[in-house]
Amino acid sequence: MSNEFLGLPSRALVDRLQSDVGALSPWLTRTRREFHALPELGWREIETTRRIATELTGLGYKVVAGSDMLRGACRFGMSAAPIPGEGDTGCMAVFDGGRAGPTICLRVDIDALPIDEAVCGHRPASEGWASAVPSVMHACGHDGHIAMGLGVARILRPLLEEAAGRLLILFQPAEEGGRGARAVVEAGWMADVDLFLAIHIGLGVPSGSLALDVDGFLATRKFKTRFSGLAAHAGKSPEQGRNALLAACQATLGLHSLAQSGEPGIRVNVGTLRGGKALNVVPDEAVLEFDIRAAEMPALQMLDMRCRRMIEASAAAYEVASSMELRGEASDWHNPPKIVEWAKSANSELSAFPTVLDAHAFGASEDATLLASAVAGRGGVAGIFVLGADIADGHHTPHFDFDETVLARGTLLLTGLIAAALSIGR
Amino acid sequence: MSNEFLGLPSRALVDRLQSDVGALSPWLTRTRREFHALPELGWREIETTRRIATELTGLGYKVVAGSDMLRGACRFGMSAAPIPGEGDTGCMAVFDGGRAGPTICLRVDIDALPIDEAVCGHRPASEGWASAVPSVMHACGHDGHIAMGLGVARILRPLLEEAAGRLLILFQPAEEGGRGARAVVEAGWMADVDLFLAIHIGLGVPSGSLALDVDGFLATRKFKTRFSGLAAHAGKSPEQGRNALLAACQATLGLHSLAQSGEPGIRVNVGTLRGGKALNVVPDEAVLEFDIRAAEMPALQMLDMRCRRMIEASAAAYEVASSMELRGEASDWHNPPKIVEWAKSANSELSAFPTVLDAHAFGASEDATLLASAVAGRGGVAGIFVLGADIADGHHTPHFDFDETVLARGTLLLTGLIAAALSIGR
Amino acid sequence: MSNEFLGLPSRALVDRLQSDVGALSPWLTRTRREFHALPELGWREIETTRRIATELTGLGYKVVAGSDMLRGACRFGMSAAPIPGEGDTGCMAVFDGGRAGPTICLRVDIDALPIDEAVCGHRPASEGWASAVPSVMHACGHDGHIAMGLGVARILRPLLEEAAGRLLILFQPAEEGGRGARAVVEAGWMADVDLFLAIHIGLGVPSGSLALDVDGFLATRKFKTRFSGLAAHAGKSPEQGRNALLAACQATLGLHSLAQSGEPGIRVNVGTLRGGKALNVVPDEAVLEFDIRAAEMPALQMLDMRCRRMIEASAAAYEVASSMELRGEASDWHNPPKIVEWAKSANSELSAFPTVLDAHAFGASEDATLLASAVAGRGGVAGIFVLGADIADGHHTPHFDFDETVLARGTLLLTGLIAAALSIGR
Amino acid sequence: MSNEFLGLPSRALVDRLQSDVGALSPWLTRTRREFHALPELGWREIETTRRIATELTGLGYKVVAGSDMLRGACRFGMSAAPIPGEGDTGCMAVFDGGRAGPTICLRVDIDALPIDEAVCGHRPASEGWASAVPSVMHACGHDGHIAMGLGVARILRPLLEEAAGRLLILFQPAEEGGRGARAVVEAGWMADVDLFLAIHIGLGVPSGSLALDVDGFLATRKFKTRFSGLAAHAGKSPEQGRNALLAACQATLGLHSLAQSGEPGIRVNVGTLRGGKALNVVPDEAVLEFDIRAAEMPALQMLDMRCRRMIEASAAAYEVASSMELRGEASDWHNPPKIVEWAKSANSELSAFPTVLDAHAFGASEDATLLASAVAGRGGVAGIFVLGADIADGHHTPHFDFDETVLARGTLLLTGLIAAALSIGR
Repeated sequence: MSNEFLGLPSRALVDRLQSDVGALSPWLTRTRREFHALPELGWREIETTRRIATELTGLGYKVVAGSDMLRGACRFGMSAAPIPGEGDTGCMAVFDGGRAGPTICLRVDIDALPIDEAVCGHRPASEGWASAVPSVMHACGHDGHIAMGLGVARILRPLLEEAAGRLLILFQPAEEGGRGARAVVEAGWMADVDLFLAIHIGLGVPSGSLALDVDGFLATRKFKTRFSGLAAHAGKSPEQGRNALLAACQATLGLHSLAQSGEPGIRVNVGTLRGGKALNVVPDEAVLEFDIRAAEMPALQMLDMRCRRMIEASAAAYEVASSMELRGEASDWHNPPKIVEWAKSANSELSAFPTVLDAHAFGASEDATLLASAVAGRGGVAGIFVLGADIADGHHTPHFDFDETVLARGTLLLTGLIAAALSIGR
Repeated sequence: MSNEFLGLPSRALVDRLQSDVGALSPWLTRTRREFHALPELGWREIETTRRIATELTGLGYKVVAGSDMLRGACRFGMSAAPIPGEGDTGCMAVFDGGRAGPTICLRVDIDALPIDEAVCGHRPASEGWASAVPSVMHACGHDGHIAMGLGVARILRPLLEEAAGRLLILFQPAEEGGRGARAVVEAGWMADVDLFLAIHIGLGVPSGSLALDVDGFLATRKFKTRFSGLAAHAGKSPEQGRNALLAACQATLGLHSLAQSGEPGIRVNVGTLRGGKALNVVPDEAVLEFDIRAAEMPALQMLDMRCRRMIEASAAAYEVASSMELRGEASDWHNPPKIVEWAKSANSELSAFPTVLDAHAFGASEDATLLASAVAGRGGVAGIFVLGADIADGHHTPHFDFDETVLARGTLLLTGLIAAALSIGR
Repeated sequence: MSNEFLGLPSRALVDRLQSDVGALSPWLTRTRREFHALPELGWREIETTRRIATELTGLGYKVVAGSDMLRGACRFGMSAAPIPGEGDTGCMAVFDGGRAGPTICLRVDIDALPIDEAVCGHRPASEGWASAVPSVMHACGHDGHIAMGLGVARILRPLLEEAAGRLLILFQPAEEGGRGARAVVEAGWMADVDLFLAIHIGLGVPSGSLALDVDGFLATRKFKTRFSGLAAHAGKSPEQGRNALLAACQATLGLHSLAQSGEPGIRVNVGTLRGGKALNVVPDEAVLEFDIRAAEMPALQMLDMRCRRMIEASAAAYEVASSMELRGEASDWHNPPKIVEWAKSANSELSAFPTVLDAHAFGASEDATLLASAVAGRGGVAGIFVLGADIADGHHTPHFDFDETVLARGTLLLTGLIAAALSIGR
Repeated sequence: MSNEFLGLPSRALVDRLQSDVGALSPWLTRTRREFHALPELGWREIETTRRIATELTGLGYKVVAGSDMLRGACRFGMSAAPIPGEGDTGCMAVFDGGRAGPTICLRVDIDALPIDEAVCGHRPASEGWASAVPSVMHACGHDGHIAMGLGVARILRPLLEEAAGRLLILFQPAEEGGRGARAVVEAGWMADVDLFLAIHIGLGVPSGSLALDVDGFLATRKFKTRFSGLAAHAGKSPEQGRNALLAACQATLGLHSLAQSGEPGIRVNVGTLRGGKALNVVPDEAVLEFDIRAAEMPALQMLDMRCRRMIEASAAAYEVASSMELRGEASDWHNPPKIVEWAKSANSELSAFPTVLDAHAFGASEDATLLASAVAGRGGVAGIFVLGADIADGHHTPHFDFDETVLARGTLLLTGLIAAALSIGR
């Protein structure tokens, strides 16, 4: 399919959407705050998923949730001590009116972070809608993403009867750590998507600004490595042991020597190491977790290979076994010019964001890149946009909060883009 | 004071002790089994101490227990999450009839090990007196030591009225890991001891044999080291972090390179390492635990100094802070010929053990060496003996058990030695 | 002094210089080839200096050479086995007609490289003017720099009588490895320079092109570190040794872990390591050489500090002494817009190079940056330009050669810039 | 063949040998000093071999020398820059009178050390017979071994006509570093030896004493390992290099961690490391030399295997190739009781040494162990004895010298043992 669906919204459509979104604005804010008060960690968004699915069903969407959506795909990086229902989260609103046209997927993410939300000098606390879950917080804005995803569902629903094409609204679990997107790709949902849209708020883009020509998504992989050796009495017969901790220490130092590169954005970080059980025993086990990054996938793949060799060799040096488990992943990504131009024109028609930035470096990892890459890989078109919103403190900090005016602007932009692509009002 | 008190038991005394111990033998076995069923970890021997103290008080001894005995001395290696009463364990029976003579200390140890006791093919389990405490087990024979300590208290009590000198029976807590003896020394109890006796059963010496000329106590120190650095985002600004985990890994590899020596028995073992909290953060903290060993104290002190330098330097290499906490200790020890000869003659008079070994290498660490060294350091005489007992499996294993006939033999030997030294029946 | 001297050459001056340079062109080529046949390593440019000085003296310049020029300044990175005269190389033509005006310094570098010049398929060899010195070769184009420096001296000499200001033409020794410039700065020559010009040919800029807006000079420092420990018999008493080789190995691994950074261009490379003397002796000495790089000086200084700490700490870990000697240096540099604009306009007037590139990344280190930074630091203006020249193979390779038409173009540009700045013909 | 040839010398034989050795004593001293003045390094004993062979030929022995003796066997650890004739040194006197009897081999070693002989306070210098070869010195007593070997040849020659059996006197090259013996074994000379005798003087045994019950020969192997990677520009594209130096550093630290063992005498020493060529190039080559030791061969073989794994794994960690060359070797050895008893009785008959030590630990490596092991391995009997001699300073030091009275005592003992075993005078 060509990209002929990248048309612009008609004047009438713009008027209607502006009006609808304006009316929905208080609801968007309220909905964001309700989800802010109920943060849940990745793969554990059980109540979050229930509420989203209830809302979507109520609107008349077909809803596919949890294991029905993930269809047996691998869940990266599940917690060491899973709770009931863990891993069966996230859902998707599906609308297919039967009229020929593109398949469009809007993706928002829904998980929170293991952070203690601030109390003093923090609006959610002073206004009474702070996190009700100890040590868990929506500190990255995904609560706002959920609100916009539901807002788009609500506003578009009555318009979809005249849509030419299909719409998927994906409420993805476990974005943090690059875990959920891989499962969605593996479950096959991207196989027939023609237009993929994802958004993130904040990230240094100020309120009223829109970053469409976004670059600098860091490709990343996250690993858990286990070294298994042989215990021995450290005093009597250390030579009979196979020291897993020495292997892990050597691997850690060696891995950090691999980050030197002429390629941009190369990083290796061994984030945790746990090894050994008792003082007088040769350690027979050590586990380390590390992540690697690169600005481009080929460099990441090369680094991945070198890290695997370093780990296998460090294990071999001490005659211990090693295993390596991929726990999370995101790829590089570059929004293609055609989607940038299209969204820019549409934003202009919609008067959603007053300012469009020339270019913006994302500067972090985001697993929507896996979804976007999957769509682009089969000929579809994909874009990941940053919606400007002033923030109270950095993402992933206890004082994080954002200017909620982004919710209406973002909803307007997304509904306009989707409606136009589905030939609504044309 | 000269060592003139190293006399031999009279014929009458021997007859009486043989008779008394013979009668007490079933009680010794029963008592051992009662304590076997109630194993408690070092510094947590709360019920154990209560039972011992009750028994000793009932016999008419003055009893000093817990913090009264330890008098504010440092407790090495307390657990990370202490329970109420932890650290205030162990007790001492004190008898002072007021007649001039030597101060004699008999020391037994009372703590158990974090081991799951075996069920199948294991006498305590099949006979119903196995450990009632999950994951804790008397797997080194300290239950037998307690029984002998109480047996000695019971048999000697009626004889002490004619004793010339003082008697201390020390039920020491937290021997495993080399923790309790240092506190007893610091509390000052060894300051006026003229004769110090300690025993251990088993250790490869068969039933009926007695090892008096014991050598090869390994000096050891156990440390906990903490590296404290600075966290930073591992992707955006790793150069702003101070990587505590890299420091710990370098220290671990470096420490293991220090064990090469022309001195005997040199060992270094980093037993545990825990570092870092999250995958994408430069680790700001790492904790390692290690122990060092040597056959002789000067070599241990040299190694201690080199390990400290290695740790400080590894921290400095990554600009992180380090701290080092001593968590346990034992010294070297060599029983002096005079006590070996005396005990050999006394054993012969008492007919306690049929066989006396020529020489025996202890081949492990035992913190009674700190008590013995303290006594010897001020001119007293000390001996640590191994009482032969066939064992079912190695010490510190789930199937450990021992031939209980050692209890009567050991009680006879110890009562004979102490009574003779206190001039009882002379 | 303001930068009012950055005027443009008059039409008459341009005509004269074009004519003079045209006539000199065969001489420039011949001179380049003469020096090509006589390559000398840094600090050893003895015959090179003699020839340059003779030529300059013959032209009527006052010449300051060798130690007279370097005035006791430190010579970085002298060879381990110096030859007579080593370190007293390089020279400077000085002209001061006494008329008020700016002090202008043109700097060219004169040293060659330890490379075996190619024979087959290599113009210098086939035409008979290849290196006559075994294993030494002008493989970076400094022979061309010399020719241009002398060409400028020859063409400007008759014009200098009307100059307002002073002219220094610096033939700098030991640029390779970043050694000579520091000595020139230390000797004080840059203290009153108002306009500093340096050039390099080739570097990927094609014939006919001129790069004025040059960026991406990598700051670098080069170090030699010596670890001094204590030898001991590796079999009988390794614990009495202080192992300098283990310290060096730990430092090497540690240094390579410091290169991870969010700052651009950070590199650490331990290039050589030599340690130990005999198989059965604890190594008491190890020497390593390393360099560090960064795109910006603050990052380089931070890295420098961290490397020093790593080395001192690695030495301390094994109780050995360490020393660290700076052996070479270059700084970052950015040509300021005013000199770029001025040179662009002048080049246009002079018709020296047909094409001027918009921007060019130098992408390597060059110690002219130290001279330029010194001049800029006291308020002068400085520029380092790349003169385009097609090359036969990469710089620092045995087949390196360059298109000699750059010599006339470069001489024309430089004479024009200098004459204009000295108000000649105005 | 049984060991029935271990008979004692007859009274008449003792008388004759005592008389002959007494007469030869000045010659022994003179000969030792002549060889002392002409020290030659291992595999370079060219003039030494010539003189020995000339002397032996003059005495009427068949002489097999250099490559005729070594028969194409591998020469371990040849120098990096061999001189003409290097590797074809050492010789053997062979006598076979045709009468049935055992084959006896006496082995002495002939190489010197790379040591500058002392001048001040050193007898060889003050008396004029110090080393005439700069930086080479007989600092281990092999000059005395040569003198005794030739003395034995001289005294026994007239007696051999009545010998029952064969005699080999082996003047072995390259004992230092454990190089020559392996070649002699490989050449097959030990295949039919029934009695093997080797000696060393000094080693802490005082003049007049004889150590027959010698133990504590350290098994050792010496290796040269080369890591071969790939060079790359350290600034522009370090990720394209394969860093051989990092592999070597990691291997070095790793090897030193393998020495911790409950087995006695375990040592690993990386004695030298050479890597890298230039400061700004990723090192593509590194060479390290190391030796390993153990009191017993099984432990050495285990350590050998672990070292190989460590090296291969360290290479694999950095994706470089590695090779490992055995450069020297000695095995463990324990003189069997029957040869100790026999030599003790014979010494008593001969009155060679007044005192025989009970037991003596050799405490070093000696490649005669390979010859002895080869003989013992096929059923022969072998002994390596230490002949007491006070020494001026330690072996392998510039002031080493020894009490030359050992020469006559040793010659008497060896001639007596050999003559008796060959049934001379019986």
